[in-house]
Amino acid sequence: MSGRFLSLEGGEGAGKSTQARRLAEALEARGIDVIVTREPGGSEGAEAIRDLLMHGAVSRWSSHAEALLFAAARADHVEKRIRPAIAEGIWVICDRYIDSTRAYQGAQGIDDAAILALHGFGSKGLLPDRTFLLEVAAETGVARAAARDGGDADRFAARDSCFHAQVAAIFDDIAVRESDRVRRIDASGAMEMVTNRLISALTDLLP
Amino acid sequence: MSGRFLSLEGGEGAGKSTQARRLAEALEARGIDVIVTREPGGSEGAEAIRDLLMHGAVSRWSSHAEALLFAAARADHVEKRIRPAIAEGIWVICDRYIDSTRAYQGAQGIDDAAILALHGFGSKGLLPDRTFLLEVAAETGVARAAARDGGDADRFAARDSCFHAQVAAIFDDIAVRESDRVRRIDASGAMEMVTNRLISALTDLLP
Repeated sequence: MSGRFLSLEGGEGAGKSTQARRLAEALEARGIDVIVTREPGGSEGAEAIRDLLMHGAVSRWSSHAEALLFAAARADHVEKRIRPAIAEGIWVICDRYIDSTRAYQGAQGIDDAAILALHGFGSKGLLPDRTFLLEVAAETGVARAAARDGGDADRFAARDSCFHAQVAAIFDDIAVRESDRVRRIDASGAMEMVTNRLISALTDLLP
Repeated sequence: MSGRFLSLEGGEGAGKSTQARRLAEALEARGIDVIVTREPGGSEGAEAIRDLLMHGAVSRWSSHAEALLFAAARADHVEKRIRPAIAEGIWVICDRYIDSTRAYQGAQGIDDAAILALHGFGSKGLLPDRTFLLEVAAETGVARAAARDGGDADRFAARDSCFHAQVAAIFDDIAVRESDRVRRIDASGAMEMVTNRLISALTDLLP
């Protein structure tokens, strides 16, 4: 039987990485084989592209070059890691995926249809079986991200609050328009509670 | 007055780099400001992407990921180097450009319309004012490239003769269909003669 493909999305400091790990443990406890991966990156080629994307000045890449690099990294990740795992019956939990590109590149003025066209070209448009949008108040996310990064933010975290508000608005819009796939998750409160909310929003897919 | 944008295309060992340099000298002798650049690469970001594209196993990237990386590198090159130079009145001679992507990625099965769509997205579809397709007999090109590379061919030169024949056929097809822009140049014989042929195929653009 094929594995399932799950993605965790949301702004900075929403707890995606922590919850990806905790969700994997919860699924493993149910006897499911799971891998946790992340974007940009997740495969050898994609990690090399990640290095180009995450470091340097905010203006290092034009928003169009950036969108193409994200699509290239994702194409490699999907082909080399995600699709093979799913085909073997393994569940894949991905920390950020196409919706992050739609939100972050969209907030830089790139048309959503163009981003989805690049995704169609590079990754045959592969979408997760379920996407969790982790939502926290903006100030909570910023404080968590600052505590994590210790003043060493990457090219995306370093942008201003207006940019991050646009990102949140686009995530919101995707959740409304693609409610079959995307579940909004309250990511405030204790980690255990958030993990329980994820599992509850996944019961229909569990074996 | 705006500068002009010229590209040199053709298979391995056709003499593109040598002729780019010689053509620049001939234009400078006529009082024209010229820069010579090359793809993949030509700007700081694009050179970093070039490193990912040219090295490693032939199978390192899927053909779709590769096409996206070429489009990203070209977007950076066009925005950071080619368009600014042209705007300043400088002539730009580029050693390989979009037609190389169409030929090499096309020979790997990527649809020409898809490659042009990526070029439209990344570089607003910028095309040269004139493209020279340098043509030599396949065995001459292979021998020249082998002498140059000394057995250290990159990921593209290392492919088999059938692949290079497909590349040549696609270049040929582009020259036929886009004859307003593309001039076929006999690249056999002495370097001086080839340079003279290039200048002759450019007289209508000279000031």
